[in-house]
Amino acid sequence: MSLFSHDIKTMDDLFVHQLRDIYYAEKQIVNALPEMIQKAQDPTLKQGFETHLGETKNHVKRLEEVFRLHGKEAKGVDCPAIDGIIEEAEDVAGEVEDKQVLDAALIAAAQDVEHYEITRYGSLVAWAKQLGRGDCANLLQQNLEEEKATDKKLTSLAESAVNRKAA
Amino acid sequence: MSLFSHDIKTMDDLFVHQLRDIYYAEKQIVNALPEMIQKAQDPTLKQGFETHLGETKNHVKRLEEVFRLHGKEAKGVDCPAIDGIIEEAEDVAGEVEDKQVLDAALIAAAQDVEHYEITRYGSLVAWAKQLGRGDCANLLQQNLEEEKATDKKLTSLAESAVNRKAA
Repeated sequence: MSLFSHDIKTMDDLFVHQLRDIYYAEKQIVNALPEMIQKAQDPTLKQGFETHLGETKNHVKRLEEVFRLHGKEAKGVDCPAIDGIIEEAEDVAGEVEDKQVLDAALIAAAQDVEHYEITRYGSLVAWAKQLGRGDCANLLQQNLEEEKATDKKLTSLAESAVNRKAA
Repeated sequence: MSLFSHDIKTMDDLFVHQLRDIYYAEKQIVNALPEMIQKAQDPTLKQGFETHLGETKNHVKRLEEVFRLHGKEAKGVDCPAIDGIIEEAEDVAGEVEDKQVLDAALIAAAQDVEHYEITRYGSLVAWAKQLGRGDCANLLQQNLEEEKATDKKLTSLAESAVNRKAA
């Protein structure tokens, strides 16, 4: 991890570094989602994860387009934040037997991931604008909107589980 | 890390475990903020971090009250997600010399922390309600609202930096 190492001197350096951070994160999420799909019990949750896997693959492509527009190599950097978040998310595949508890844990883990992405894309959009890269900002904003929509869907699923329990 | 280990069988187990996760996280944030206060260049950002340190100490106390109400021991559990996020945040103390870049990096790191807390408190409030613990839900909601307000302030600071740059 070298987020704030010697090679970050300008806003452009910071932008490119964090772009590589989220590029690494999106790829890790593509790897992590199939197990979450397999473990999800509620059909709506399972379908939601499947849809989000497709979206996430598309986010990787959009990021590659941002790198191309900005004239930088598309590559990832290690990021202990997303590694830690995904480590927790993957543990969902563990030992919870009760279906309701498993889904609740999966939803919470997925929301941790979404919120990390939402905050990272929020900064990147602001920095792209600051750097006069409206073209990059537009693409990053599209990824941001899809992450926000996924987070909202997960909240609805969590709430509907609460309501089912109360009914 | 044993988030989904054998000892999580019920929604109550999951609730208590994640309560211990955020309790650990809040204490780590209390430890991390003084260095961020010291490093912040913009006086409004510095003051914002100072205010949030006071709020965070209060969040720890509210969590101890939640543990008490729920009849469980107030203790933390290791959590690689917040450890990773804080590892990145602490690296802000590193090698960035440009003041504007340093503040931008500090704001982004702080927002990573806030979003982790927002998602964690969001789940905890929902689960407290599901478990019929309205008293705990109310206290957790207070922490959630303060985290959201802090995140909003950080977004404003990030945007005003962009506007200053554009002016």
